[in-house]
Amino acid sequence: MTTKIGIIGDGHVGCTVAHQLIISELVDDLVMIDVNEKKVKADAVDFEDAMANLPNHVNIKVNDYSALKDAQIVISTLGRISLETKGDRFEELEFNKKQLKPITDTIKKSGFNGILLVISNPVDAITNLYQQLTGLPKEHVIGTGTLLDTARMKKVVAQKFDVDPRSVSGFVLGEHGDSQFTAWSTVKVLQQPISEFTQDKSWRVEDLDNEIKEGGFTVFNGKGYTNYGVSAAAVRIIRTILTDARTELPVSSFQEKYGTYMSYPAVVGREGIVAKINLKLTATEEELLQKSAETIKEKSQA
Amino acid sequence: MTTKIGIIGDGHVGCTVAHQLIISELVDDLVMIDVNEKKVKADAVDFEDAMANLPNHVNIKVNDYSALKDAQIVISTLGRISLETKGDRFEELEFNKKQLKPITDTIKKSGFNGILLVISNPVDAITNLYQQLTGLPKEHVIGTGTLLDTARMKKVVAQKFDVDPRSVSGFVLGEHGDSQFTAWSTVKVLQQPISEFTQDKSWRVEDLDNEIKEGGFTVFNGKGYTNYGVSAAAVRIIRTILTDARTELPVSSFQEKYGTYMSYPAVVGREGIVAKINLKLTATEEELLQKSAETIKEKSQA
Amino acid sequence: MTTKIGIIGDGHVGCTVAHQLIISELVDDLVMIDVNEKKVKADAVDFEDAMANLPNHVNIKVNDYSALKDAQIVISTLGRISLETKGDRFEELEFNKKQLKPITDTIKKSGFNGILLVISNPVDAITNLYQQLTGLPKEHVIGTGTLLDTARMKKVVAQKFDVDPRSVSGFVLGEHGDSQFTAWSTVKVLQQPISEFTQDKSWRVEDLDNEIKEGGFTVFNGKGYTNYGVSAAAVRIIRTILTDARTELPVSSFQEKYGTYMSYPAVVGREGIVAKINLKLTATEEELLQKSAETIKEKSQA
Amino acid sequence: MTTKIGIIGDGHVGCTVAHQLIISELVDDLVMIDVNEKKVKADAVDFEDAMANLPNHVNIKVNDYSALKDAQIVISTLGRISLETKGDRFEELEFNKKQLKPITDTIKKSGFNGILLVISNPVDAITNLYQQLTGLPKEHVIGTGTLLDTARMKKVVAQKFDVDPRSVSGFVLGEHGDSQFTAWSTVKVLQQPISEFTQDKSWRVEDLDNEIKEGGFTVFNGKGYTNYGVSAAAVRIIRTILTDARTELPVSSFQEKYGTYMSYPAVVGREGIVAKINLKLTATEEELLQKSAETIKEKSQA
Repeated sequence: MTTKIGIIGDGHVGCTVAHQLIISELVDDLVMIDVNEKKVKADAVDFEDAMANLPNHVNIKVNDYSALKDAQIVISTLGRISLETKGDRFEELEFNKKQLKPITDTIKKSGFNGILLVISNPVDAITNLYQQLTGLPKEHVIGTGTLLDTARMKKVVAQKFDVDPRSVSGFVLGEHGDSQFTAWSTVKVLQQPISEFTQDKSWRVEDLDNEIKEGGFTVFNGKGYTNYGVSAAAVRIIRTILTDARTELPVSSFQEKYGTYMSYPAVVGREGIVAKINLKLTATEEELLQKSAETIKEKSQA
Repeated sequence: MTTKIGIIGDGHVGCTVAHQLIISELVDDLVMIDVNEKKVKADAVDFEDAMANLPNHVNIKVNDYSALKDAQIVISTLGRISLETKGDRFEELEFNKKQLKPITDTIKKSGFNGILLVISNPVDAITNLYQQLTGLPKEHVIGTGTLLDTARMKKVVAQKFDVDPRSVSGFVLGEHGDSQFTAWSTVKVLQQPISEFTQDKSWRVEDLDNEIKEGGFTVFNGKGYTNYGVSAAAVRIIRTILTDARTELPVSSFQEKYGTYMSYPAVVGREGIVAKINLKLTATEEELLQKSAETIKEKSQA
Repeated sequence: MTTKIGIIGDGHVGCTVAHQLIISELVDDLVMIDVNEKKVKADAVDFEDAMANLPNHVNIKVNDYSALKDAQIVISTLGRISLETKGDRFEELEFNKKQLKPITDTIKKSGFNGILLVISNPVDAITNLYQQLTGLPKEHVIGTGTLLDTARMKKVVAQKFDVDPRSVSGFVLGEHGDSQFTAWSTVKVLQQPISEFTQDKSWRVEDLDNEIKEGGFTVFNGKGYTNYGVSAAAVRIIRTILTDARTELPVSSFQEKYGTYMSYPAVVGREGIVAKINLKLTATEEELLQKSAETIKEKSQA
Repeated sequence: MTTKIGIIGDGHVGCTVAHQLIISELVDDLVMIDVNEKKVKADAVDFEDAMANLPNHVNIKVNDYSALKDAQIVISTLGRISLETKGDRFEELEFNKKQLKPITDTIKKSGFNGILLVISNPVDAITNLYQQLTGLPKEHVIGTGTLLDTARMKKVVAQKFDVDPRSVSGFVLGEHGDSQFTAWSTVKVLQQPISEFTQDKSWRVEDLDNEIKEGGFTVFNGKGYTNYGVSAAAVRIIRTILTDARTELPVSSFQEKYGTYMSYPAVVGREGIVAKINLKLTATEEELLQKSAETIKEKSQA
């Protein structure tokens, strides 16, 4: 066995993650699972129709939970984006919660013992539930969290300074949702803290926050869902795990201090969360983080 | 300037081709064009939100026809799949035809002088129109044609013989549509003509034809469109052109003998169709090809 | 654990295979082994000095045989090219033979149970010895054989017909050495048997045999060894195994009929040689194959 | 024309860069140039022998200076490592200098107007000469400089903190040679300045300097040259240029302030050096930089 990955949920995100994994040559055995059997079979056959024209080969299995047994990674993308009528990811909570019990039961039954990566929203709450229901070690259950939002922040800063997004460092922290925030004290561009560039008062970093949010709206309103950005975030985490790259990523991981899953940079490797990081945040940022944690916990219990 | 590619049409196929090109690191400058400005901007932003988490960088422009000037390749994916109520690709012809005049005018105005790759259906008829309206050399205008259908045939044969689809050779010829056919005399597997394996009469190669068609239905009925298979076919052609790989591919190219665009293997390279190939078909296959050509010509004039 | 590969021997070929595996993102854990500890450490550190500038991460271990335990593939590149003074690969046999016993003992001791890929020359004899000494199933021990020579043949034919080497099909068979031969009856280009193109008698396919040989000489004489072509052949086999691609490749596998390892196409997959193929050779080609087998067996016993 | 790259010099580094470019699918047309015609032809043929087994196609030309005309990038790897008997790269200066005049004359004559990337040592002095002799804009002539040394520093820090080298930020500055230095004030790991981790006085960052140097010695002494690390640095710059990625890289670029080529981070894009960066160095670091610049200028005039 080489690289086996399972994807639960074959909606806009699930099949895009599958496509990116196949094209990136990151997966050898792919297990696709969805309650909509017609849709997941359609995507599987469509991928198989691609094989003769691709440089690499991938074996695909559909709706075979037992095949997850020896997967290195299982990804949850289940969800119902149409429930998000007010733009709050917690609108999906009740629906997704209900699906989790039978799904996690079957995952457990399969004997799966790898890393569980959660994209389903509200991601911090759902990641929490996945961990509790599967009983997998906390370090082995990770949510994509604000890795996407961090990419959006980097994009906006990069555009302002005309550099590559990967030349911007820094983090968006907290809930992958309304209470998230850019920890501007962590953001550097052109080798300097971004605050250095605002000293002439012609603009404030907070102005960029609007642009970051607007970007998300443009995508969501323009097509009713987002898939490419979040798929890239998920695949980056997957690549990091598979290669044991021990990279610092802002993912949703269990924060002992706050008693909840929430995004904060951690070192990711083959064993999931392999080391903790301590940011030197400002007092205001610490407060925002605290508030975000409370928001997640409150809304999760509702 | 390095690799610049334009994509006209940002539907299910257009954005999937864009995604595959980005993930395959085959494009440096991408121009995305669609009349639905909200949708194409959404996809462009979504791709930009992916950049910070991808290993490579792509510059994206939206709805800027003038940027096509120095593109190496422009891809047409425009179409309206919802018009195909009876499963015949010619149901899209009238709608797509009307859009072609203004589009080709703008392409010409941009000064574009590269290779035009057509995925829009009915692909043979539309490729024909693109060539006539742009006035580009016939060798520079290519349709994806039966490269997808050939991949489907290879998949079915490969599954029967438990080998990789790329270990099957042979072609589906003619219209990318109802009158297409597998030229079984060209099909080889396990280093032998497939006919060698049917000598015990336990099965006939024609049985596989049904499986091939069924595969297409499974995809179309399961999700209402197909995108991954055809995207892989298109990207394979693009890769072949960009690297000047001079590979034999069954694409829709102008067939002097029949006076129409139609799929038949040709050598593809940087200058589009760079050499012709002569298959030794059976009399029946020659007849089917003749008929398929007539079908395309008839339906195109309707 | 994801993809772990071991390479025994860090000469011209060993480190080139390592480099190609790293750059192709085909390996996550790499074990490099060589008796010249200074050299293998130098290459390992040099690879590590590359990591910060590569898109992917690879963990490297040096001279740790126990790490081979859970490798999917172990590659043998050991050899002493300087012994080939007369251009016959069997000149290396005695030297390489002596090294095999302790090496295979250590491999066995590690508990390795994957696929063993042999590049060491004379490759058919050495592959044979590896299989006997390790006791691994015959299907799990493979030599690169004439996959390189087949690529050389395809290159020469492709150049003559101005197409891509991958658009040429056919095989070089037998010993990876002096008694090898192109089975011209298997060679197709532009969708026709190559013999079709020689009917005007202006040239004979045998003329190409000289060009094929000359290519090898140009490389060997120009730099004293060959590495890139054989590395590409090895990595193609590795990719085929890792992805379970079930592809037909002319590799050195055990030929029951002849009682020796020798190159003949077989279907390669995750379990090594997963299916046999029967070529319809001409009587002359069958004779050449028989002779080549005898050559290998004779020289191996010398 | 798509991606065309020329490589002048086919020694240990030249052919490794060529190999990495081919395997990374970053080049479509490759021009290889070397005075040792036998060697460069051997490598070209060896690469061509790889093509049939690679997923992508590359066209190779040998010793054709006129083909550089429309290359996007030309790389200089010429040099004679055997001259470095005392481990000082300036020992190569006289020899390399003499070769430059005819080479730059031919480059100019070809009409080449792209980016010139210099790896030849002593790299800062040679890059300077290349710029003067070709008359290309200073922004279009770049040396690989301390990008390799920075990778080595990141590797050593990464190993100490058990993270990925790409999770370490910071720079080695100045001459790619004896007077270079790690600007420790710029180095961050685990999201904190590395100085934060030395407060318990159990170790000093300067201790790592020795490890960094030792790494280089291990490679050089172990095999008499280095190639993989520097090739990865060069290819990263090439990828950045081709994709116009506008990434901050510590490369050798012309430093107005010091009147010499020297390594200092700059934003690299399609037009070479596209923006400057200002580091906030400590007084000591500024002094070291000044000294390093003087060293380069002095030794260049010798």
